[in-house]
Amino acid sequence: MPRQESSTDHAWDCLITDCHVASMAGNDGYGEIRDAAIAVQDGRIAWIGPAADLPKPAAEPLDEVTLNGDWVTPGLIDCHTHLIYGGQRANEFEMRLNGASYEEIAKAGGGIISTVKATRAASVEDLVADAGRRLESLIEEGVTTIEIKSGYGLDLDTERRMLQAARQLMEDYPVSVVATCLAAHALPPEYAGRQSDYVDLVCETILPTLAQEGLIDAVDAFCEKIAFTAAETERVFQTAQKLGLPVKLHAEQLSDQKGAVLAAKYNALSADHIEYIGEDGVQAMAAAGTVAVLLPGAFYCLRETKLPPIDLFRGHGVKIALSTDHNPGTSPALSLRLMLSMACTFFRLTPQEALRGITINAAKALGIDDSHGSLEIGKMADLAVWDIEQPAELSYWIGSNPCTAVMKSGYWARRSY
Amino acid sequence: MPRQESSTDHAWDCLITDCHVASMAGNDGYGEIRDAAIAVQDGRIAWIGPAADLPKPAAEPLDEVTLNGDWVTPGLIDCHTHLIYGGQRANEFEMRLNGASYEEIAKAGGGIISTVKATRAASVEDLVADAGRRLESLIEEGVTTIEIKSGYGLDLDTERRMLQAARQLMEDYPVSVVATCLAAHALPPEYAGRQSDYVDLVCETILPTLAQEGLIDAVDAFCEKIAFTAAETERVFQTAQKLGLPVKLHAEQLSDQKGAVLAAKYNALSADHIEYIGEDGVQAMAAAGTVAVLLPGAFYCLRETKLPPIDLFRGHGVKIALSTDHNPGTSPALSLRLMLSMACTFFRLTPQEALRGITINAAKALGIDDSHGSLEIGKMADLAVWDIEQPAELSYWIGSNPCTAVMKSGYWARRSY
Ligand SMILES: [Zn+2]
Ligand SMILES: [Zn+2]
Repeated sequence: MPRQESSTDHAWDCLITDCHVASMAGNDGYGEIRDAAIAVQDGRIAWIGPAADLPKPAAEPLDEVTLNGDWVTPGLIDCHTHLIYGGQRANEFEMRLNGASYEEIAKAGGGIISTVKATRAASVEDLVADAGRRLESLIEEGVTTIEIKSGYGLDLDTERRMLQAARQLMEDYPVSVVATCLAAHALPPEYAGRQSDYVDLVCETILPTLAQEGLIDAVDAFCEKIAFTAAETERVFQTAQKLGLPVKLHAEQLSDQKGAVLAAKYNALSADHIEYIGEDGVQAMAAAGTVAVLLPGAFYCLRETKLPPIDLFRGHGVKIALSTDHNPGTSPALSLRLMLSMACTFFRLTPQEALRGITINAAKALGIDDSHGSLEIGKMADLAVWDIEQPAELSYWIGSNPCTAVMKSGYWARRSY
Repeated sequence: MPRQESSTDHAWDCLITDCHVASMAGNDGYGEIRDAAIAVQDGRIAWIGPAADLPKPAAEPLDEVTLNGDWVTPGLIDCHTHLIYGGQRANEFEMRLNGASYEEIAKAGGGIISTVKATRAASVEDLVADAGRRLESLIEEGVTTIEIKSGYGLDLDTERRMLQAARQLMEDYPVSVVATCLAAHALPPEYAGRQSDYVDLVCETILPTLAQEGLIDAVDAFCEKIAFTAAETERVFQTAQKLGLPVKLHAEQLSDQKGAVLAAKYNALSADHIEYIGEDGVQAMAAAGTVAVLLPGAFYCLRETKLPPIDLFRGHGVKIALSTDHNPGTSPALSLRLMLSMACTFFRLTPQEALRGITINAAKALGIDDSHGSLEIGKMADLAVWDIEQPAELSYWIGSNPCTAVMKSGYWARRSY
């Protein structure tokens, strides 16, 4: 870790001592600092390093917190979620397990269209209230940054309300929200048989309007046989490019559509799912610096057996991130920490790789790794504190919540010391 | 649900209203009561039924709690755990994922023997402190009864300390603890090559001594190629029978050793794991009323692919219970609720079957279903309260904790109303 002199001309806002740090700085590993101290000033990390090297400040810190030997990691980053929607689908889940057919479920109002209907019927306030409760579960476990996609509106007004709800959640909770427009998620029922017209609506109306309104941080699409073609996806990417917005892609979840190659061509921040990606896609991602976002919750719920090609990612130096993919149909997961366990168990990631996947690499998947995702001088003071003896425990225990405190932008969002 | 007249000669200790109930009474389903009321007196359920039918009490209840439409289930029962042990094995977990060989892990002090060593080095107080922290996670999610096995001592003194710790946990936490002696868990290193001598120690010394000391509620063994033979297991069962203790068995986890048939012969409360059980075993269990305890956490951690024969259990009317199998090696699971999701996902149980598996059927697996496991007049007032709209949500959401209150024996262990 590079050492820099901190400004000591006025008192630190907070000095954190008696802790160990998994800073996640550097190119791999935990970036461990045993017996560490962290100084926070103006919402950022003013100093971090071994406590023995702590510079003597000019004035006493305004606050000093002793962590009793607990571990500090960067605040966790959930970089791929569909957290905002109306309703939920426990009923459909139960019907399916009781043997209901696809038709019976559709007839009873199941499937993604049921979520679109419920979302269209919801106000911004409804959406914020429902997603807020879910967000609380994630924050309890140390999440300080979350990406949330639209994509259950599939019309201008509802896509707008979803993105407005994402902005509102950032006001209401101690969390940064990256809002991604996923209007190209599915074909809305009123466009049945007219997929090209819907892509027109997305590219000519929804994206330009909502970008203009300042509601979009990134643009996503679902490139798959059952969703949008590579050519349609490219139209969405070209629109994003014109609007100056970064792109990401749901790709290669069910088949190799060469979505990752396309995403890399547009310098996508990430290509997500990608169980069926070929080596050409991996090479293209490596060249473009596109992050592989793996979604073990969906893998689990769908009882997938096709594993993403972890060794190819490792071999080509593609960075791997992990996320809940929270959504009501295929991953109603509300624990980002559980994704560590599932990534180690299903994908055989190491606990180090897994933790990098929800910190520094997740930040990279959102294009915010210059300011988030690791604990380094000058980065945001987003921290999670854990009652554990070693970082591998975050992947090892299944359930339980060892998170004892969370700091967001220099403020304690939760604290038990 | 049978309606009985309650005694109304003095005031109820607590009247719970504005709730829905999944009573789990009856032979299947949730035993749903919409718009219910529950009266509690002297630690037991004095009345339960639709609020509209609530008898007018002779006196005002001492306490009245309004649950705002939340759901009430029986307190959850984790019927198969190894919660008490020294140390933990995150280090071994991490080494394995980094490609360490079995020898390297053993050399670094991994495997069950490392847990035996750490447990032998621990005092009762150490064991209670470590297991207590884990128990808190389970209680937070609504667990009011837990079975805990010994089996990491493998000598008289340490098996005793483990069982004493189990008794102590019941003093320290609002939870009932069923203490099971699993001295026949593994061969201790000092008996290498003398397995029969160790079975002598178990049957002639450990079981009689600790039974005499009142520390044992049930006797368990691990019948498997890598553990104890069916003949050795039968010696353990005969000893238990002489001591008047009920038995249960770790059986058919890796191969069909006919352990379930043997367990049924001794009227075992349960046969556990049993992925490899044959139809003869299922029939024997059905005849004996032996419960099938399925352990999805171990199935997950070991990445098993052999499913337990759910349809055979259903067809023969064998009751199915679920448990965390919490242990440091093959299931460091600290969420019983997550086992609902895993049982539905991996084993295709319905959410109803899954919930019965951690309530009434888990009680049956512990031989306490006359007093625990369902919400009926006269049973213990062990309740969990949930902020959900329908019981299937308990299986549907992955992570998060919708448990808003827990009552143990008529006392609120936790309450947010
Ligand atoms: Zn997604
Ligand atoms: Zn076990």
